[in-house]
Amino acid sequence: MTYDLVIVGSGAAGLSAALYARRYNMNTLVFEGEFGGETATAGKIENYPGIMSVDGYDLMKTMKEQGKVLGVQFLEERVQKIERQEAYFLVTGEKETFQAKAIILAIGSQRRHLGLSKEQELTGRGVHYCVTCDGPVFAGKTVAMVGGGDSSVKGVNFLGEYAQKIYFIVRGKEIVAEFINLAQMKKLGDKVEVLLETEVKELVGDKMLEKVVLSKAYKGSAELALDGMFVEVGYDPDQTFVKQLGLQVDEAGYTKADNMMCTNIPGVFAAGDSTNHFGRFKQDITAAALGAVAATSAYEYNTIYGQ
Amino acid sequence: MTYDLVIVGSGAAGLSAALYARRYNMNTLVFEGEFGGETATAGKIENYPGIMSVDGYDLMKTMKEQGKVLGVQFLEERVQKIERQEAYFLVTGEKETFQAKAIILAIGSQRRHLGLSKEQELTGRGVHYCVTCDGPVFAGKTVAMVGGGDSSVKGVNFLGEYAQKIYFIVRGKEIVAEFINLAQMKKLGDKVEVLLETEVKELVGDKMLEKVVLSKAYKGSAELALDGMFVEVGYDPDQTFVKQLGLQVDEAGYTKADNMMCTNIPGVFAAGDSTNHFGRFKQDITAAALGAVAATSAYEYNTIYGQ
Repeated sequence: MTYDLVIVGSGAAGLSAALYARRYNMNTLVFEGEFGGETATAGKIENYPGIMSVDGYDLMKTMKEQGKVLGVQFLEERVQKIERQEAYFLVTGEKETFQAKAIILAIGSQRRHLGLSKEQELTGRGVHYCVTCDGPVFAGKTVAMVGGGDSSVKGVNFLGEYAQKIYFIVRGKEIVAEFINLAQMKKLGDKVEVLLETEVKELVGDKMLEKVVLSKAYKGSAELALDGMFVEVGYDPDQTFVKQLGLQVDEAGYTKADNMMCTNIPGVFAAGDSTNHFGRFKQDITAAALGAVAATSAYEYNTIYGQ
Repeated sequence: MTYDLVIVGSGAAGLSAALYARRYNMNTLVFEGEFGGETATAGKIENYPGIMSVDGYDLMKTMKEQGKVLGVQFLEERVQKIERQEAYFLVTGEKETFQAKAIILAIGSQRRHLGLSKEQELTGRGVHYCVTCDGPVFAGKTVAMVGGGDSSVKGVNFLGEYAQKIYFIVRGKEIVAEFINLAQMKKLGDKVEVLLETEVKELVGDKMLEKVVLSKAYKGSAELALDGMFVEVGYDPDQTFVKQLGLQVDEAGYTKADNMMCTNIPGVFAAGDSTNHFGRFKQDITAAALGAVAATSAYEYNTIYGQ
């Protein structure tokens, strides 16, 4: 089966690209990967212009539905491999290989881990990466947030609705976040204890996280007993397809794309958080816009070069 | 009164910028001009990712409300003049002058007219520019659409729900539009008569448009009797503030802005249809994204240079 366009990813960028692609009448297949990308697990969203308040998962469901009613094909699979073969790209999923005239990579970027020895073993057992997914479990409990940037402050604010005590463990000398989020955190008062210039050195616990060892003593002890720990230390864009296709990336690994979301490889377009388009400013509204732009460029590419 | 930020325009770009500006806690004033910009009169919108279907006016009302609940100030006025005075900008409205630390120009672009002698006199009297506003009046009537691009095809499709006959007068050799819109127009069948390589040379009528004179005879006559004529021949960005502030523009008059929506004048940012950011691709979703980016840059500018 040959598609005019294969889109990799089903976050705001991928789904918006799919909607626009169908409006251009392109035969379009979306490899969903993790449905809805980061947005689906983002919880309540109040800064998407045009919608007062919406759950991230519902926002993604609506975007998918907009493509679906126009005839976008969806596959609940991850792409294993993309290769160029003459005029086409071969896109291999979990069962089948498809031909595509153009590709849009809307793969987002992956959460960074701390790289501690028991981190993987204790994930989901006291070590967590998504406050909106797992925060409510810790109602009345003592938790830590490891971070320092805006997302971690938002995470603390979210946890503030549930947890009894939150240790905010920050490696740097200060927290760097939106004013509105910092102001909201201040309202939590004593519930939040900020530990600056502090790192988690070790995770302790057998089947569940019990405590962490800090790089700097807090109240006379380097050990901190915790019911749960959340990690929000940023993202790394996946390099798999970058390498397979030979895409140019910036120093942080984000795909370089021009104003119309064209990469250095003809026929390959990029959109959303995996690109460097708006620098570090990565929002649902920007991802959706870049998806629409990438679809437009893919359409123009196919019109000129397509068979 | 000094504002951290004055936003000129209340279309998708201006309102999105206002929403984001308040999230950054900037003291923000929006000069609305024509409320909702082009979007407010765009009719039904089905390509805004995240919303299945919405009337343009309602979409703009929601965006305004999102800013309003966060404390954005709105003024139903047009800006008369912007000038730099030392570290501030002086923004003069219809009654008062305000100080602003930063400016976002989200002024969109103005509809092009045909430049015919009776055009202004007959505007609203058979000569119209907004199908969604004035189309329904022509139920069962004979109308013309002057255009050739995507907006004019969408206009024809809209008119198709009301008018009995539509003459589509196109100056060029072909219609250039989205496939999906062309396909929809085809469904209107005989109702639409396309007159290629034809221009309207003269408008005839006293108090109401009665007929037009064409540059090329149609069915043996250069005169075409009409109940109404719609014009969709593109846009020109307003140059007033461009000249007052000394902004750099491209060959078509669109403001040059970098990836973060900074213009060549420090403290002045641009967003939406008046900019050249995504080339000719100008949509609500891109305008909203660029507004959010401009607000972010204005915030960073004020953080660094603001007093």
